[in-house]
Amino acid sequence: MSELVGNVLVGQSGGPTSVINASVAGIVAEALNHECIEEVYGALNGVLGILQEDLIDLASESQQQIRALRFTPGAALGTCRYKLKKQSDFDRVLEVFKAHNIRYFFYIGGNDSQDTADKISKLAQAQGYELRVIGVPKTIDNDLVTTDHTPGYGSVIKYICTTVRELACDNAAMGQNDLVQIVEVMGRSAGWIAAGASLAKRRDQPHDPPHIILLPEIAFNQEKFVADVKRVLAREKYCLVVAGEGLVDGDGNYVTADASTDAFGHARLGGVGEFLREVIDTQLPGTKARVVSLGNAQRAAATGASKTDSDEAYLAGQAAVKAAIDGETDKMVTLVRGDTDQYSVETGLAPLSEIANGVKKLPREWINEDGVSMNFQFMRYAQPLIQGEVVVPFENGLPNFARLDKVRVDKVLPGHDV
Amino acid sequence: MSELVGNVLVGQSGGPTSVINASVAGIVAEALNHECIEEVYGALNGVLGILQEDLIDLASESQQQIRALRFTPGAALGTCRYKLKKQSDFDRVLEVFKAHNIRYFFYIGGNDSQDTADKISKLAQAQGYELRVIGVPKTIDNDLVTTDHTPGYGSVIKYICTTVRELACDNAAMGQNDLVQIVEVMGRSAGWIAAGASLAKRRDQPHDPPHIILLPEIAFNQEKFVADVKRVLAREKYCLVVAGEGLVDGDGNYVTADASTDAFGHARLGGVGEFLREVIDTQLPGTKARVVSLGNAQRAAATGASKTDSDEAYLAGQAAVKAAIDGETDKMVTLVRGDTDQYSVETGLAPLSEIANGVKKLPREWINEDGVSMNFQFMRYAQPLIQGEVVVPFENGLPNFARLDKVRVDKVLPGHDV
Repeated sequence: MSELVGNVLVGQSGGPTSVINASVAGIVAEALNHECIEEVYGALNGVLGILQEDLIDLASESQQQIRALRFTPGAALGTCRYKLKKQSDFDRVLEVFKAHNIRYFFYIGGNDSQDTADKISKLAQAQGYELRVIGVPKTIDNDLVTTDHTPGYGSVIKYICTTVRELACDNAAMGQNDLVQIVEVMGRSAGWIAAGASLAKRRDQPHDPPHIILLPEIAFNQEKFVADVKRVLAREKYCLVVAGEGLVDGDGNYVTADASTDAFGHARLGGVGEFLREVIDTQLPGTKARVVSLGNAQRAAATGASKTDSDEAYLAGQAAVKAAIDGETDKMVTLVRGDTDQYSVETGLAPLSEIANGVKKLPREWINEDGVSMNFQFMRYAQPLIQGEVVVPFENGLPNFARLDKVRVDKVLPGHDV
Repeated sequence: MSELVGNVLVGQSGGPTSVINASVAGIVAEALNHECIEEVYGALNGVLGILQEDLIDLASESQQQIRALRFTPGAALGTCRYKLKKQSDFDRVLEVFKAHNIRYFFYIGGNDSQDTADKISKLAQAQGYELRVIGVPKTIDNDLVTTDHTPGYGSVIKYICTTVRELACDNAAMGQNDLVQIVEVMGRSAGWIAAGASLAKRRDQPHDPPHIILLPEIAFNQEKFVADVKRVLAREKYCLVVAGEGLVDGDGNYVTADASTDAFGHARLGGVGEFLREVIDTQLPGTKARVVSLGNAQRAAATGASKTDSDEAYLAGQAAVKAAIDGETDKMVTLVRGDTDQYSVETGLAPLSEIANGVKKLPREWINEDGVSMNFQFMRYAQPLIQGEVVVPFENGLPNFARLDKVRVDKVLPGHDV
């Protein structure tokens, strides 16, 4: 393998997680180790920044700020949901890469983003432009194939479990067998996030909350739901329900979908909590239903993040750079779990094309017969992912997150209409 | 003053906070210092537990558990919203007190609870039963008169500010001047909680989020709201709105009240976030509106609590015992702020009757002219209350909260219908 001398470009794409910036930190820190890498640039707002030649000089950021990315939520470079479609857009990406001698492209994102990276890589190959493209997995949804799990997932479920434990203390104090506490969580096509809430149960305490988990994998049946709630209320002081936003009815339609969709054609969800409150209000009059809807807060909750998750996000960023330096391209970094009982993780690589449009479903055999709780196989899988707490520095009573200087790289090309 | 020998009873009432249990810990720890106190009992679910003679022996709990109360949310003794009305109920309370030689009664709660404590105290006096009654303030709403602020308030606003800071990182990454992030927070009759979100702004950064704070004190005007949102979106990448659940229209009606009310006649609120999303969807088509509704999670967020607040809740519990030992009765502990620039707090006492049904409003002169932001007077008031972080021990990735043994005190009276 010949040494490839040139510049690095890092981009972030799709919805942020509380640890996506840790992957940027891992990439920047590792890139500084390699002499063949000359400049380390960031693309503002993912491919949008590439199209518009909006690049920043990441090597000029202070060490403190790069370190602070390890506990800063959001996407510090900015992100986007823009989908490259036109040939002129793809050509423009290559034009920008050539103009700035980008030879290493690291794209941090989920399925759609890895698809974009794959297409850019193939175009570069077709044009004979030497470019190494490595994807870094990111999504709270945990739905990428080929990787044991995705950075972002452990933190979102740790935050939700912490919230469930805290709510349980509150609910138990108030409850007179007539309180249904509904917690609405994200998860469009798979129930990984809602399922993760099951870790809030103490081991060997199956009656701990959450009492009912509503997954997109199990068609919502109102009669069964009401019966389940009644059974829990007969036994406990309250009933804590965790519901994934992607809940579907028997016909496979979202129970709450509205008309709007995003650029990738995904339905805009939300409102499952209010939907379930209505069900309780009408079917169980006299029972109080209360909703917590965590929305974007769950994927931004850096102060509740998992250290294991944050460390793995950083590791994935480092591994991406190492792989590219080793001559790899057109791959995504994967997390590979060790075989032993003691949890361990190594990084691997998988072709981008495999990840691009696959969706990893929650295994049906990890869901209990009752359809509303998870079994020990899920627990064994997910438990290690929430271990350890990220220490976020507080200043004047509040978390002090990274703020990048974002020194712009001079534009050398004419403008491009997006 | 003669020494009064007898037993202590502690009760918790109303909605929990993340630090109400710290006041229980303060009471129990202080009670052990005084020989005239023989037993330390807790009433399960406030006055309901008294009526039903459901008492527990708090002195038999381990030191670890009592210490763990300092970071455990909810109400460890259980709470209630039951209102004593019938004379037979009041008589029953005294009967239970006499049967268990309760000579010191500490009731931790808000306005309604202090009213209950006041009536019990007056009845004991009328019957010539020597009883010392001291209230301990508690409410996230910060609406009790005579005290500078209430334990519970600092923690709820610290948690909300942390969430706003985290959301801001997420929103800034995603926003293309078309994102309105709505955060719905509690606060029935006063905007203290929503106002507290203003601390998320860095000093001298008036354009930091939250960009718009909607307070119950300022009648909601849809046209102005839409204009405010548009102005922020023209300047910033996104618009972060914090809205108090008690938002009212020009006629003083809740914008979202539904028919149900609690035992005290308060309207059940909630849904302001969805209401505002509807406004944005219809008035600003093409603008994305996203809602986070923190519900009960905000008052249970022990992992995000303020150490200042938690310490003051503990201090208030200790002060209640000391006051009663000193012969005080029919008073509530207050927090008195020192005069100097350096924040300090001492405890004071105020007559229960003064607190009972007063409501401390957010001063109008602390709200800026624009009606949607707070000025330096509010900042100076609230900033000290969120200082310091409570360290919650985590076990196996999740917070490990107190679990009391709740050893029952033998009942000696016949039953009583509630």
